[in-house]
Amino acid sequence: MMFENIRIVLVGAMYGGNVGSICRAMANMGLSRLVLVAPARTLNHAEARMMAVAADSILESRREVATLEEAVGDCSLVMGTTARVGLYRQHAKAPREWAPQILESARSNQVALVFGRENSGLTNEEIAICTNMIQIPSSPDYPSLNLAQAVMVCCYELFVASGVHEPLEEKTVECLTRTREHMFTMWREVLLQIGFMDEEKADHMMLGMRRIFSRAPLTEDDVRILMGIARQMMWKARQAERP
Amino acid sequence: MMFENIRIVLVGAMYGGNVGSICRAMANMGLSRLVLVAPARTLNHAEARMMAVAADSILESRREVATLEEAVGDCSLVMGTTARVGLYRQHAKAPREWAPQILESARSNQVALVFGRENSGLTNEEIAICTNMIQIPSSPDYPSLNLAQAVMVCCYELFVASGVHEPLEEKTVECLTRTREHMFTMWREVLLQIGFMDEEKADHMMLGMRRIFSRAPLTEDDVRILMGIARQMMWKARQAERP
Repeated sequence: MMFENIRIVLVGAMYGGNVGSICRAMANMGLSRLVLVAPARTLNHAEARMMAVAADSILESRREVATLEEAVGDCSLVMGTTARVGLYRQHAKAPREWAPQILESARSNQVALVFGRENSGLTNEEIAICTNMIQIPSSPDYPSLNLAQAVMVCCYELFVASGVHEPLEEKTVECLTRTREHMFTMWREVLLQIGFMDEEKADHMMLGMRRIFSRAPLTEDDVRILMGIARQMMWKARQAERP
Repeated sequence: MMFENIRIVLVGAMYGGNVGSICRAMANMGLSRLVLVAPARTLNHAEARMMAVAADSILESRREVATLEEAVGDCSLVMGTTARVGLYRQHAKAPREWAPQILESARSNQVALVFGRENSGLTNEEIAICTNMIQIPSSPDYPSLNLAQAVMVCCYELFVASGVHEPLEEKTVECLTRTREHMFTMWREVLLQIGFMDEEKADHMMLGMRRIFSRAPLTEDDVRILMGIARQMMWKARQAERP
């Protein structure tokens, strides 16, 4: 619902490939409303469809208007994007900083994210219509992002900030100390049995083993595998000792 | 220095446009080491150069190798990327979660970020070589990102986490209460003078004015502009009252 109230506005887009990539990026991040302001007449629609891949419905349902005013007339927040810093641009903040305010506003208002031309960005007149400016963090050696990449970073930050995405969780639980200790006991036994160490050095070697397996938490599955190996080694070692 | 130790590895890349876009994204985010593992023989190099724009030096200085083993042999952390969840993939975490560990490791070790083919990703054999898996948060309705977009999100997260980027700061300072109060006094005076309100309603109206200008902090510059307007209005109003 919140995401339905957020639109991506492209001013004077020149390349169909970018427009298509933007449709896909929007779909990847849960957005669907695209508005083109005065796109280039030479814009390659076949290329746009190709790059949109499974997001062609966003491309088909786009709105096209002649001016930025028309595109954002019914919006409250109008977030412009810029690579440069200058007049009007000094209050720019990073997308991660803006994301919570954009999402909060989009709960009950229309919000626009406005992106300028591939070669020259937004004009000062267009920036004046924006209520706020977004600047994507980038290297001072090459600060200018491809248009579709800039849209992706902004949409991605909104998607992550929305918390829609469930954090990936370990499917298996971390193992308990008694299980882990049982595993170390088995390994101590088998390492003695195969002659990897003698009783005198065993405690010291087992400290090394413990350090290796303490670098990251072991899951119950991990420990089951390690115990299986020890068990199998013991069996094989006993076979070897048979006359 | 840290960024010099991080390489982007593309396995079986098919499209020159993607490879070029990736060079640009890397440059945007301060990275420079690109390794191609068995790229498609049909890969369009002219398209790659076109999309790399000013990042063509990354394209030119790329390494090409036959296998993933060769590409990451000298690395400690090998971060694979996946859109799917499944066998080997259950321990995937989001790029924002991994970023600090990747940067920490890259201070004194070689680190690889590995991306699979445009159409089929990484094979299970290739995933087995990776020490950890990255999964980019995305909509369950369309989770599959364009290759260049996926690389951008990962590079962007590393760049932001590195803290290299200075947060954008207001160039002008927030105004002090005594300046703000002076401004409100001027406005009270002029609003009375032009007959916008009478003395009886003045306090109430001024509360409204204060509310409007308290929504966000005013800078010294803002207040100077507002005082300038009040001053000019007073001057014009006095002219109007002349006989």
